[in-house]
Formats: sequence, structure tokens, C-alpha cells
Amino acid sequence: MNTARNGDRSPLITPDLHDEGHAMIRDVPGGVTAARGFRAAGVHCGVKKSKKDLCLLVSDGPAAGAAVLTTNRVQAAPVLVVRQQLNTSPTFRAIVVNSGNANACTGERGLDDAWAMAGAAARAIGVADAEVLVSSTGVIGQFLPMDRVLEGIALAARRLSAEAGGDAAEAIMTTDTFVKEAAVRCDLGGVPVTVGGMAKGSGMIAPNMATMLAFITTDAALTPGLLQAALVQATGRSFNRISVDGDMSTNDMAAVLANGMSGAPAITDAADPSYRVFCEALEHVLVRLSKMIVVDGEGATKFIEINITGAATEDAATAAARAIANSNLVKTALHGEDANWGRILAAIGSSGIDFDPAQVEIFFGDVPILRRNYRIDFSEEEARKVLEEKEIRITVTLHQGEAAATFWTCDLSQEYVAINANYRT
Amino acid sequence: MNTARNGDRSPLITPDLHDEGHAMIRDVPGGVTAARGFRAAGVHCGVKKSKKDLCLLVSDGPAAGAAVLTTNRVQAAPVLVVRQQLNTSPTFRAIVVNSGNANACTGERGLDDAWAMAGAAARAIGVADAEVLVSSTGVIGQFLPMDRVLEGIALAARRLSAEAGGDAAEAIMTTDTFVKEAAVRCDLGGVPVTVGGMAKGSGMIAPNMATMLAFITTDAALTPGLLQAALVQATGRSFNRISVDGDMSTNDMAAVLANGMSGAPAITDAADPSYRVFCEALEHVLVRLSKMIVVDGEGATKFIEINITGAATEDAATAAARAIANSNLVKTALHGEDANWGRILAAIGSSGIDFDPAQVEIFFGDVPILRRNYRIDFSEEEARKVLEEKEIRITVTLHQGEAAATFWTCDLSQEYVAINANYRT
Repeated sequence: MNTARNGDRSPLITPDLHDEGHAMIRDVPGGVTAARGFRAAGVHCGVKKSKKDLCLLVSDGPAAGAAVLTTNRVQAAPVLVVRQQLNTSPTFRAIVVNSGNANACTGERGLDDAWAMAGAAARAIGVADAEVLVSSTGVIGQFLPMDRVLEGIALAARRLSAEAGGDAAEAIMTTDTFVKEAAVRCDLGGVPVTVGGMAKGSGMIAPNMATMLAFITTDAALTPGLLQAALVQATGRSFNRISVDGDMSTNDMAAVLANGMSGAPAITDAADPSYRVFCEALEHVLVRLSKMIVVDGEGATKFIEINITGAATEDAATAAARAIANSNLVKTALHGEDANWGRILAAIGSSGIDFDPAQVEIFFGDVPILRRNYRIDFSEEEARKVLEEKEIRITVTLHQGEAAATFWTCDLSQEYVAINANYRT
Repeated sequence: MNTARNGDRSPLITPDLHDEGHAMIRDVPGGVTAARGFRAAGVHCGVKKSKKDLCLLVSDGPAAGAAVLTTNRVQAAPVLVVRQQLNTSPTFRAIVVNSGNANACTGERGLDDAWAMAGAAARAIGVADAEVLVSSTGVIGQFLPMDRVLEGIALAARRLSAEAGGDAAEAIMTTDTFVKEAAVRCDLGGVPVTVGGMAKGSGMIAPNMATMLAFITTDAALTPGLLQAALVQATGRSFNRISVDGDMSTNDMAAVLANGMSGAPAITDAADPSYRVFCEALEHVLVRLSKMIVVDGEGATKFIEINITGAATEDAATAAARAIANSNLVKTALHGEDANWGRILAAIGSSGIDFDPAQVEIFFGDVPILRRNYRIDFSEEEARKVLEEKEIRITVTLHQGEAAATFWTCDLSQEYVAINANYRT
């Protein structure tokens, strides 16, 4: 994991987030410029005081585009613009992002500003306005300082480089303490293909695309429809399965550009075996980024993986995992390294799923804590040993069926309260 | 408000919780023994180290009973017992409650223990087992020390008194820092009638009967059906409209006994004007107790009232208010006295209700913060003056219709995390 610092905080945990190897997918360095034909830049333009705050990401050829957008009823101007662009433009060439100001709750003027950002980037690189996706993150309810943003876009266009993926990832950060990048390589029809990405998270992270930005690039070739389907599925198993504080944002966006410049055969059919490989590669990158977001959760001191097994359906497993991950009582108990399994069981009980509490088994790491029929027979010392670790794996077996789901979250600390009590000042 | 201390904490806020006067309903001192024909006792039996932990509440004559129980799928033994009692016994004579141990997740043995508590109380006062409702609160997953509990019940039966309502209210507390009692008097058919109650709250408070106990007594006479209907309605506008941390418990219960000993004409028809008066009196008591629970929320430093007006429906108003009240980001911002209206708007946006964000207006106290079309024109100084108070009223006008709802919550402080990180130890 890249650990370039940007925030005033330091991440309190640095677990190894690499998953077990996959035969056809291997990790490679870099992020959004790892794939062929992508250049990027990250510069300071003055939305923030001194840190990088403007990112431009460009594909050297036309790319299929797809995006998953916030489900919050309050949608920032750039989200509204991107929704329109996705419905009208067949291909895309760039993404422009500013941090420090969310351009949310800014009405007509905000919409004009978002279009002006896309337009300025489009002119700087010589493409159509509708081909430049636009995104913002930061404080809500203030107008963008457009003079500085437009200067920043011009500057970024001059600095575009295939080596600047890290700068781009730094420029989209808000309270993040480290750059979040991941990339993998796989073979599609015998041709090496790269999928890379970057993300920002930190505050306001919750399931259902609740506040974060992620931008993914690939030199694979896919139809926009398949690209969208792959993104929706992978998001469902990554960004929608993490939670920091249960809040949803107005600006969430995960977008992907696929420019086909690897030369791999185009994927035009979901039955193509290459489609499954691409989906796995994409999910791998998104899960890596998701875990980084949790690690960097505001005030987080522990990385917590919640595995639900034996559920009647995957939906039930996900609902149970989400209820645990969003419970302040569970999260504070884990912060205090307290083996309070009763709060876990109560959280599942509040999730709305149908299950028999007497059948539930709970494990902390490999230590059984609760067995069937409420049999409790664990040493507090063994449990504490697991809970003292920076990475905690909780497994809950419902014994209702065969479905499973995994969720990632962090603990709730005094530091979270301190960060969020005075965010604007 | 009675401020007898019991916890290690002190309440950080002591607002005046009395509502504006009601022509036909007036506050009177006391709690569960304020109404005629009720006696109570609160004693220490040894579930807790030294504090009162066993409460017995007795009606001198047969009473109609009603209860609202937790919606958590994981239900403690006493909740299961009470559900069965309500379905079988036509009248009730007593309620026995222990604190310090929730008798939850305790299987068959827990059920036997709950019935044994009811049975011991029934024998001590000479009534049938099914006439004694039973309730527990405290740690989950441990068996009750039944020898001590049974001794405590015998002791409490000897101490029953019409003056011991406060002792009873003290004996049901867990991390509460003060006794929660309220009572009102009203006229039904020219006869003075009293409604009184007690509650415990503090941790795990959330809407939908999510962890708290409340026991209400009245000397009014009602059919069990009307009593249940009145309780459900009043709970919907009181206990289900407060939130401390969004968590739901396994033991929540609000129960009411109506013994008719005032001599007021029995209410047997919802169209009887006396029924409306009784409902208002009951709601008044429940709202008072609800506000006390919020004031005593773990780590709370501010009491926050959220008024949603101009909603399309009462359900939409309630959903919007609940989303604000449960947002960690809103609650930390209020803790920090930060006028972060964007988080309020984003919380409403995540509630699932349909509305036009550009129409929303937000007030802190009487200070307009956000006007229609995202017009922001407030002095930070004026806003801060409101937010520095211990009681904060937030009004949100959606401009979508005529419906309204009020919700009560508290801020989220570092102290909340500290309390809940080490609850068991």
C-alpha cells in the first residue's frame, strides 16, 4: 500500500490488505495510469489552502464509460451532470475532479460550474464537453472558486503524464491520510490487460455508495453495457460492503473508463469467458480500494472483517453483516477490545432478517465465542488476544442455509468524534 | 425532574422538560405509585454489587394490562413470557423487574427463570403466576443468580408501599444517572384520574422500542383492547421518536396496568371523549419519560429536538427526523457546536423519502440557516449562540405538504465511546 501522507492524521492501522493470489490475476504497482493509454495529473489550484486539490485523468483514445452514483436524494451538481453525460455520450476521454469543495447544494450555479469544469478540461485536451466526466468532494453548500479551478485545469492539462497516477490519487483526498491506489493484470484472450484505480474515503463511508470517490481505468475493451454491469456487480461486493459511520454522502461516485488500448479482443457478450475474468479483476481492485478506505476510516484503530455464513440468502447475509458493521455499540466494544458477543447477536436481531437466535455461532478469529443454544464457553484471555490485534475477523454462522457475505468496517473511537465535531473549522 | 444519582456518571444536561400546560392535564409529583391502588418496592438483592436491582410493582385490584415489546428478532426470556401472558391472562396484578442481568440469550433455562420470577412474586402477594408480568435489563448471555433474585422478590413484597415509587424507579436503572418518573392528573367523566410511570434508558436507545423499559400505572378503567391501542399510539409518538445511538435491544418493554380504582366510568369505546383525554394524558407521561431518557443518553452533553414540518405525510416526516437523529455525522457536529447544515440535508436525503432538496429550509432555534434554493445567509456567530446552548431545537421545513413530526436525540461525544468501549468490565 502506498503510504504517502497528506492529512493531519496518521492511519493507526496498516494491515496487509493483499488477498490470496488468483491464478489469472496478479497485483501490479500503480493506479489509474497503470493501464495502457492513460495519463493523469494532480495539482494544487487553491480550493484547499496548500494541498493538491485538482485531478485530471485522460484516456489517449475514446473509452467506454460507466458509473455508479450516490443513492442519496440530495445529489451534488457533478453527480447530476455525470448522470446526464452517461445517458448521452457514447464514449469518454477524461475525468476531472476537485477536492476541498463538494459543489453540492449549490443549485443552478453549481450545475453551471460543473459543466464549466468539464468544458475547460475538454478544451484543454481537445475533446467534446460531454466526454469529460466531472466530480467534486469536500465541503457542502459553497460555490466553487471557479477562477482557480479553471486555472488548475489548464495547469493539470500541461502536466499530464503516465507516471502521475499517484499525484492524481493525492489530489482527490479530503481527510484521507494516505493515497489509495491498486492495480492488477490479467490475460484476456491471450493479451495482457490492466485494471487500475484510485479512491478517496475517510469520512461518511457507508454501504450503498455512501460517500466515496473511486476512478478506475482499464485497457480492456468492453461494450458500455457490459462495463456498467461489471461495475455494478463489483461495487455490490466491495464499496457497498464497507462502512465507517453509516452516513451517506451527496457526491458518491465510482466511475470506470475502458479504452481497449491493450489490443485484447473486445468483450461484447456476458457469456464470453473473458468477461468473467475481467469482472474478477475489477472486483479485486475494488475490494483492495474498499479495504484501504476502511483502514483509513476516521479515527479507526482496528480493521474488522465480518463474515456471515450459513445464511438463507446472500441478501440476508449482507443485511446481517451490515447491521453488525453499523452498530455503534459493536464498534465501541471492539474499540475497547471487549468480547461483547451479545451486541453482535442483538445487531443481527435488529437487521430484519429471519433466523433462529439459538442456532447462531460466533467466532472471534478462530476462537469460538458463542455456540448453538447460547452455549458460552470461552476464555476471556483467548478472546482478548484476538481483540488486541489491529485486524479482527468476526465470523457468524447462522445455520439457516448456504449463503455468505463479507463486510469490512472499523471501530468507533473517541478520535472519530473529535474529527467530526469540528470538521468545518 | 427527580435527580437522585445512581450511576458513576452525572447527567451533563438538565433542561426543563415540562411541556406547555394542557387545559385538562396537569403534572403531579411521583411515578408508578401516583395512581390510586398501586404500591411498589425497590431493593438490592445482589444481581448488582451494591445498588438497587429488584423492583416489584403491585396493583391492589385486578388491572387491565397492555405492553409494547421489542421488535428485535433476538428476544430475551422475559419478553417471550410477557407475550404469552398478554395472550392468556385477562387481568394483571403486578410487575417484577430485575436490573443488572438481561436474562437474554439464555435458552430454556432463561425461560424457566423468568417464569420462576413471576411465580415467586405471585406467591408472595397471593395471585396467579400469569398475573405477574416480568422484565429484566442488564448484561446479555448470563444466567440470573436465581437464589438472590428470589430472596429479593420476597424482600420487596414485604416492603411494598405507596410511597416507594422512587425506589422502584431506581431499581430498574442500569447506566442511568437519574431516576425517571412522571405523572399527570386529568378528569374522566368528572372523576380525577392519575397516570404515572417510570422508565430506564441510557444506552442502546433507538426508535422502534429499541432498548428501554417503561412501566405505567393508571387508576383509569379501560378495556384491554383500548389500553393496548392507547399504548401503541402513545409509544409511536414518544419512545419510538427518541434515539441515542440507533441500536435496538433484546429486552425493550413498555407495559401499562389500568386498575380502575379511581372510580371513573370505564372506557369501553374509542369514541368516548374520555378515551381521547386518557390518550393525551398517557402520551404526556410517555413524552416526559422519553425526554428524560434522551437527556440521560450515554455521554450526552446536548438535548436536541428535531421538528420536521411541511412533509407530505407523517411517515415521511418521521423518517426524515429519524435519519437526522441517527446520523453520527450530525450528532458529532452538534457536539462540536458546528452549524454543519449540509450533514442535516444529506441525512434527510439518505432517509428514502421523496422531496425536493432545493425547497428545504433549516432553522437552528429561530435562526434561519438554509432558505429555499440553497440560499445561505446566516451569521456564524448567531448560529453558534444557538448551538452553544444545552437544548437545541432544529426545525426543517420540507415544503412538500402539511405533515409534521418531532424527534428527540442527543449529541455523540467522546464520552459515549468511552462508556461503551468497556461496558462489560
